[in-house]
Amino acid sequence: MSKFTSHMDAALTEARRAAQRGEVPVGAVVVGPQGEVLARAGNRTCADHDPSAHAEMLAIRAACALLGRERLTGCDLYVTLEPCAMCAGVISGARIRRLYFAASDPKSGGVDHGARVFTHPQCHHAPEVYSGLSEARSAALLREFFAKRRGPG
Amino acid sequence: MSKFTSHMDAALTEARRAAQRGEVPVGAVVVGPQGEVLARAGNRTCADHDPSAHAEMLAIRAACALLGRERLTGCDLYVTLEPCAMCAGVISGARIRRLYFAASDPKSGGVDHGARVFTHPQCHHAPEVYSGLSEARSAALLREFFAKRRGPG
Repeated sequence: MSKFTSHMDAALTEARRAAQRGEVPVGAVVVGPQGEVLARAGNRTCADHDPSAHAEMLAIRAACALLGRERLTGCDLYVTLEPCAMCAGVISGARIRRLYFAASDPKSGGVDHGARVFTHPQCHHAPEVYSGLSEARSAALLREFFAKRRGPG
Repeated sequence: MSKFTSHMDAALTEARRAAQRGEVPVGAVVVGPQGEVLARAGNRTCADHDPSAHAEMLAIRAACALLGRERLTGCDLYVTLEPCAMCAGVISGARIRRLYFAASDPKSGGVDHGARVFTHPQCHHAPEVYSGLSEARSAALLREFFAKRRGPG
């Protein structure tokens, strides 16, 4: 199993745990320059009463707290869903080197859709972006979650 | 003094306090539906080692924590500088009713510049936006801070 698959698997595990807590199933992992996992998190917006508590935001904040600095230069982020505009903003602010995301998010995404945060001169750092890794598994988790929430019929 | 000026004055006080701590001078205040101040904050990215610790983000998170919910429906945000893409994202997520900002930010703004977060269908709630209130005072604070940081010459 490649390191990429292993890190995205860890993000998918966080997404599943989020679903078990009743949160939208999105998970994220921050990996350091030597391939070490620095932080992992799932969505906690409901549990924390915090609209900023997306998986990417929480994992980045935890990694920064661990390292005691506000930039994660040389670190990579794995996330199961295309980040929204808010999370794309913090990914840029944290100077994440590479962003790997699984499922595309035409409805709320801010990387390949809508605000396309990394494409403007007002964005002072853009990560390399790789998408599609484990896309089917992430999309299945999300579909299952929203189907259950809507209920039968 | 109108309530608008009074709330923006409070945000400017937070911006000045941020500058005294060596942080970029931006301040924000969240005001509830009855005009009560729910939370106020200044930038803390350096102090907290947290790239997300912008004034708007901290004030919104504090107001949500106070109310015990992830949405600030009916609440307004006063901030001394045009929000970046990240902060525009959390303003939308928190369902802020009205956004008042002082100085425009052509370099890093995400409301009237760059990502223009509120203008896309991927943004599921856009606040009413009012800009220019106390603009000169906020811009002077920022100019003074960056002039000092660059040093003489």
